[in-house]
Amino acid sequence: MSTDVVEARPSNIETAAQMDNILHLPSPSQTFNGEARGSVHHVEAVMERAHHGGGWLLSGIICINILTLGCALVSGSAFNSVAITAVHRQIFLIILLLLTMLWMLFYTVVTSKKDQAVLFKDSHAGPVWLRGGLLLFGFLSLLMDIFKIATYVGYLHCDSAVKVAFPVVQAVFLIVQTYFLWFHAKDCVQRHTNFTRCGLTLLISTNLVVWMAAVTEESIHQTEIPDLNVNISHKIYRASYGDIKCKCSHSVCDTFKDAFYYLYPFNIEYSLFASAIAYVMWKNIGRLVGDHSHQSVKFCPKDVRLGLVMGILLVVAGLVTFIVYEVDILTEDEKNRNKALLIHFVMNIVIASLMCLSTVIGCIMFRLDHREHVSEKNPTRSLDVGLLVGASMGQIIISYFTIVAAVATGARGYLNALNLTWAVLMVLQLGLQNYFIVEGLHREPFHVMQEAALHTNAHAFREHPEMSVVLETHKSRYSMTLSPETLSWKRRVLKEVCAFLLLANIILWIMPAFGARPQFDHPIEIKFYKFTMWAAIVNIGLPFGIFYRMHSVASLFEVYLIS
Amino acid sequence: MSTDVVEARPSNIETAAQMDNILHLPSPSQTFNGEARGSVHHVEAVMERAHHGGGWLLSGIICINILTLGCALVSGSAFNSVAITAVHRQIFLIILLLLTMLWMLFYTVVTSKKDQAVLFKDSHAGPVWLRGGLLLFGFLSLLMDIFKIATYVGYLHCDSAVKVAFPVVQAVFLIVQTYFLWFHAKDCVQRHTNFTRCGLTLLISTNLVVWMAAVTEESIHQTEIPDLNVNISHKIYRASYGDIKCKCSHSVCDTFKDAFYYLYPFNIEYSLFASAIAYVMWKNIGRLVGDHSHQSVKFCPKDVRLGLVMGILLVVAGLVTFIVYEVDILTEDEKNRNKALLIHFVMNIVIASLMCLSTVIGCIMFRLDHREHVSEKNPTRSLDVGLLVGASMGQIIISYFTIVAAVATGARGYLNALNLTWAVLMVLQLGLQNYFIVEGLHREPFHVMQEAALHTNAHAFREHPEMSVVLETHKSRYSMTLSPETLSWKRRVLKEVCAFLLLANIILWIMPAFGARPQFDHPIEIKFYKFTMWAAIVNIGLPFGIFYRMHSVASLFEVYLIS
Repeated sequence: MSTDVVEARPSNIETAAQMDNILHLPSPSQTFNGEARGSVHHVEAVMERAHHGGGWLLSGIICINILTLGCALVSGSAFNSVAITAVHRQIFLIILLLLTMLWMLFYTVVTSKKDQAVLFKDSHAGPVWLRGGLLLFGFLSLLMDIFKIATYVGYLHCDSAVKVAFPVVQAVFLIVQTYFLWFHAKDCVQRHTNFTRCGLTLLISTNLVVWMAAVTEESIHQTEIPDLNVNISHKIYRASYGDIKCKCSHSVCDTFKDAFYYLYPFNIEYSLFASAIAYVMWKNIGRLVGDHSHQSVKFCPKDVRLGLVMGILLVVAGLVTFIVYEVDILTEDEKNRNKALLIHFVMNIVIASLMCLSTVIGCIMFRLDHREHVSEKNPTRSLDVGLLVGASMGQIIISYFTIVAAVATGARGYLNALNLTWAVLMVLQLGLQNYFIVEGLHREPFHVMQEAALHTNAHAFREHPEMSVVLETHKSRYSMTLSPETLSWKRRVLKEVCAFLLLANIILWIMPAFGARPQFDHPIEIKFYKFTMWAAIVNIGLPFGIFYRMHSVASLFEVYLIS
Repeated sequence: MSTDVVEARPSNIETAAQMDNILHLPSPSQTFNGEARGSVHHVEAVMERAHHGGGWLLSGIICINILTLGCALVSGSAFNSVAITAVHRQIFLIILLLLTMLWMLFYTVVTSKKDQAVLFKDSHAGPVWLRGGLLLFGFLSLLMDIFKIATYVGYLHCDSAVKVAFPVVQAVFLIVQTYFLWFHAKDCVQRHTNFTRCGLTLLISTNLVVWMAAVTEESIHQTEIPDLNVNISHKIYRASYGDIKCKCSHSVCDTFKDAFYYLYPFNIEYSLFASAIAYVMWKNIGRLVGDHSHQSVKFCPKDVRLGLVMGILLVVAGLVTFIVYEVDILTEDEKNRNKALLIHFVMNIVIASLMCLSTVIGCIMFRLDHREHVSEKNPTRSLDVGLLVGASMGQIIISYFTIVAAVATGARGYLNALNLTWAVLMVLQLGLQNYFIVEGLHREPFHVMQEAALHTNAHAFREHPEMSVVLETHKSRYSMTLSPETLSWKRRVLKEVCAFLLLANIILWIMPAFGARPQFDHPIEIKFYKFTMWAAIVNIGLPFGIFYRMHSVASLFEVYLIS
């Protein structure tokens, strides 16, 4: 142990970050002023990692290279059918998948042998909704791969064997990766940091390349319909793909093909989820986390009556209209389809308006309630906020493109007007909700605050006598605002708002996740932007939008607990 | 003054960041343990800013909204010529430009009145190369606008007046913005932080929307050539634009039109530069910077003979081949054009190989030279590194797309083989150079280190007795490596490498910045990806590549001084 200390030098760009983490360990005063033992332990930990510099840089370079090469290959195979085919792209993907699996196996073996490798676990990383979503989407992706294998086996006599090999490898990869991420999402790796960094960026870039490939394939599949006529029968529209030259050797081919194209969106979601988890792991490498005891706030649904009831009503109403929409939109009758769109648009407008209203109430509550902002640094939370705001971009982009198309064509007809209203409300709702969630997450939890208020002041007073004037005033202000009578109704309203928004986000998640695509059923944007471009925008934007809804639900639950 | 203190509460998400900044002020020990006065001053400064929370969130939301709306409008006007025309886009841009100018005027007036508004200046922000580049590109953009005005005045009788109004407003904007950024680039705003944040994001998004519009216009202009035949006469290719229906009323129209299309790339660069400076300003809002005395390291060119001589030779050779290329590529003779391409490719390969070689030597020197990494947090430097790596993506993407196209078509013929080699070497060179610069920037300056080494150790020893073992060893190690004899040759080699790379980057900047476009003169990628897509890739990627080269020159100069 002691030789380690002597060998190490603190010459590392990360040292600053490390020191930062140490400063935020559970009891900094103890560590730095008190017991020398704890201090030595931490200094040693920092120095241990001193050898490994520049690993993040190397891993970043690897990530950039794989991503760009993948991007070029995917674009090449999409826009040029002669020189680069899907087979080339799939060979590249198979190599990436195999390499990533190798690394994951290596990591699992190493961490299972040495107990030292993973000393710290970040309790905030890999929350249950993210891992649960990964499991769900992973299962559906596996199903997609099985259908793919079954389909392409029928084409083996006239098509490349790679088309069967790829889903086989991907199926194995899905199982290995889901296992890996499920058990290691919370790891804060302390040994082999450089190698782990590179491995994780390999994992991230593999998933992103798979994502790019899936998005492109899905877009091309949708545009394959020859000479898209918007009035075309919907049943034909959804079943008109299939290779003309090469005939399938078994009879259930078309059913499988139909099925696996429906499962594509889940595979796209899966790749995004896996990348997000791996990115958090990458950020956590070398981090020293204290044992933040998990907030043991209980969830009492009886606290919130109005929000819960309203939310459940909204979910039920949303589900009913969603089913009506899905049934009616498949009919060939133009009138029926317009009725389905009308119901869908009206329902979404109602949901978005109610959400905007309740979010505004929530923001006003935050203004009235002068609670402390959390000053402690929390990398996972900043990352969470970044992912949330980033993912919301998907829906915002779709909405703005709709707005421009609707305004430019004059928004004639009630359907176009409703579509425009929906898009505007959606942008408003996303902005407000982002603000509400970010503000809420940065508040000091209520119960912690009550206890801490006096303690902190006393502590600060002892250390910095010159702050006494400020803090005394501060304290008296607190005692004033903290009286239970004044606060309770504000907290109650906040909780109601959170519960309502949470349920509303669930229904907004269900509708696109299970197949509602008014973006393609309503012709205005397709006509305006041409089909290829609009399909690309929706196929890139919508999965992020779905991710955003799930993420919002989790964040709102956290805000609910804090309030 | 005292009432201010009493009113303020430290309830702010920024507080952590503020405290962080305070911790890195020149003499933390003095501030916290010593004179109470200085401490009160800082505490007050932190609390003053306590009122303004969530401003960064609001400004972010504004930025996202403007950018997405701009993106939708630009795409709409590019791909749909009926409902949304260039006129609509220009009206939107005029509104944005006017709003941004209003804010800049407001800011200038406020800061000139109250001396309090800008207490701190970040000496690292807005370096002279960035502001110099801004001035140069601003001047050329102004010229472009004048040519545009002259051109579109001739079309006034049959085209919209907005086409004249837009360049007029843009010309005024260019002057106001260049003035604003030149004098305020280093500001760390302390008052009106929320409003300034929003204003700056308005500035950033305006510039980015202008950038998007310019990139799209340039791409469309290049694809306007009807039925692009690669063997088409080059003179015709470069002069075949012009509206057919609406005839210009004066005779010099075509000359002006020719001229202003040549100036487009400079306008694209200008927008990128302005966004980068504004982004740094946005990051610096509310930051408390200490008076880091500027490193007074002298630049002695006589330290580096070999690197300088080699570099100058390279620049001269590059300039000669560049001129030959520019002359020959405009001839109609296929053979001459191929000769020009051959010379250009060979020259670029030679430059890239030499750069790779010298960067590898530099990296080895870093490995041998066990100097301290800077542990101090420096937001401007992290930002610098981010911009550098981000900008390199532009060239990397172009190179990878070339690689895929060349490999897929078999790289037949010597020109294709050379093109492929160049692209591979370029990716390698960019990766190595990024690594070299980032490593170099994070090293402790040599002269500082020598003085500081003993002092730091003594200081640390006094405060944390338990670290003595570690640091004693550390110290002895230092005294060993620091002996002037061993270091001098390593430092010398590092300086030679920096000087050579610096000059090589200058020639790699000059060639694309002043019009070399082998990407369009050599047919392989155009054939492979179709013209529209390739034009979009090059027009987005190349300006970033040019920005990267200028940024590299500045960073390498810094690394040279540190070494």
